[in-house]
Amino acid sequence: MSSSSPVSEYRYRRRVQFSEVDSARIVNFSRYFSYMEEAEHALWRQAGLSIAPRGATFGYARIGASFEYHSPLRFEDEFEVLISIARITTRTMRYDCQVTRGADRIATGVMTIVCVTGGEGEPLRSMPIPAEIAARFAVAAGVSA
Amino acid sequence: MSSSSPVSEYRYRRRVQFSEVDSARIVNFSRYFSYMEEAEHALWRQAGLSIAPRGATFGYARIGASFEYHSPLRFEDEFEVLISIARITTRTMRYDCQVTRGADRIATGVMTIVCVTGGEGEPLRSMPIPAEIAARFAVAAGVSA
Amino acid sequence: MSSSSPVSEYRYRRRVQFSEVDSARIVNFSRYFSYMEEAEHALWRQAGLSIAPRGATFGYARIGASFEYHSPLRFEDEFEVLISIARITTRTMRYDCQVTRGADRIATGVMTIVCVTGGEGEPLRSMPIPAEIAARFAVAAGVSA
Amino acid sequence: MSSSSPVSEYRYRRRVQFSEVDSARIVNFSRYFSYMEEAEHALWRQAGLSIAPRGATFGYARIGASFEYHSPLRFEDEFEVLISIARITTRTMRYDCQVTRGADRIATGVMTIVCVTGGEGEPLRSMPIPAEIAARFAVAAGVSA
Repeated sequence: MSSSSPVSEYRYRRRVQFSEVDSARIVNFSRYFSYMEEAEHALWRQAGLSIAPRGATFGYARIGASFEYHSPLRFEDEFEVLISIARITTRTMRYDCQVTRGADRIATGVMTIVCVTGGEGEPLRSMPIPAEIAARFAVAAGVSA
Repeated sequence: MSSSSPVSEYRYRRRVQFSEVDSARIVNFSRYFSYMEEAEHALWRQAGLSIAPRGATFGYARIGASFEYHSPLRFEDEFEVLISIARITTRTMRYDCQVTRGADRIATGVMTIVCVTGGEGEPLRSMPIPAEIAARFAVAAGVSA
Repeated sequence: MSSSSPVSEYRYRRRVQFSEVDSARIVNFSRYFSYMEEAEHALWRQAGLSIAPRGATFGYARIGASFEYHSPLRFEDEFEVLISIARITTRTMRYDCQVTRGADRIATGVMTIVCVTGGEGEPLRSMPIPAEIAARFAVAAGVSA
Repeated sequence: MSSSSPVSEYRYRRRVQFSEVDSARIVNFSRYFSYMEEAEHALWRQAGLSIAPRGATFGYARIGASFEYHSPLRFEDEFEVLISIARITTRTMRYDCQVTRGADRIATGVMTIVCVTGGEGEPLRSMPIPAEIAARFAVAAGVSA
């Protein structure tokens, strides 16, 4: 699972499950954010990391997330989520995300995370991404930042 | 929210949300377990308690859960979840659950929880329900145990 | 539930449920989109309408949705979702959304829907929002479009 | 995907996703029902069928579902869901379900479905499972019915 060179993108394959489809018989728009999150965590595993290892004293919170929807997904559709690192700063990382089904463009997403620390009930405080973690990632070529 | 006499049942009112309805245009069967859990936590609040207070060193795990389904729920239906305590032992509590929409029987559930402790990565170990917590609850009259 | 004057905003109250909180012990970022959708449907009911009446031959698809996150929500927090109509065009409607917990700003969202028709397996095609539906809504005062 | 001999069980592999883990940092008990449903639909695909083909005039409703929980699952755990057909009658099918992580027993489930027909807003009515569908399935050897 580990990888010696930095990781910049990951192609995550998935099938639409029945309970993800809402009463309009298309995938509910909120589910795409879970798909993007699943792809993000697969990207981290590709980099040899867990985004939330047990006992960790810091983690990652979302600053923002968005999707534009081009075409619907339906039950049992097989699709791909291509997640790419668009920007890395001292404390944040931004991903671009393309959801496709074969040649069909389905949706386009963006998500930004920030490294945070903070116990239960305390406010979250941002902190720099530890160097050994940041070193595992790189901005993807060809991402329009 | 607190209550001086022990609490034995709670009537929780809810409306079906769009994303809870699956591709068959009825509420997905797995959602009833969330409805039962929401009603359980409302019952605990009625007893002046949170089932998961911040910083707690113990909690409650599920031993078993089941539903029988009589009639479907659809988008925007208003329904009731009547949760009743059917049995209390030293370490466990069992609930009965009736889901109804007006006079219509929708579903009937059962759920058993056990008091547990255990840090991250450790196995969960059962422990007695603390006396001051058990004292807030009583078995509901008329529950067929 | 019906209302004679057009509806432009709705204040939806909600409590965080246990299963909405993820492994970081804060509400998962994807859930805010469900909260916004629940508030939207409550706004429609306030206007005397269902967004998805049974047997309808048309409905509403999402063009885009986004959230910016300011502060986390935790289990059993009570919060408000203020959804406001920011723009209405012939075929689309855009909402602004403010999630707050008391005086705390939690998150800020935007969502755009388009009126669509199309049977199962067919592509969705946009269509004008029927006049009698559009007449029930108005742009909220003070929304910065 | 099609198969000439009847299908009686399916071994479905899965990884725990972040949003499936609740505030206790273990998979929420309600999620196991989705895991069982995902495995069921994979079993049907193995039999060359979709459980919900587009345009179908009949489908399958749940009569009952239950789980007993032996040990928790945590974020990023890889696990298996072995779903086996325990009983087939004219109108119903019953599955047994074993969730394991390596050698660890995690949970044991049962689910019964009934073939139904019924348009929107009508009550669901049971009907015999069509012969060409029933012929694709067989009771699993060694299932204790």
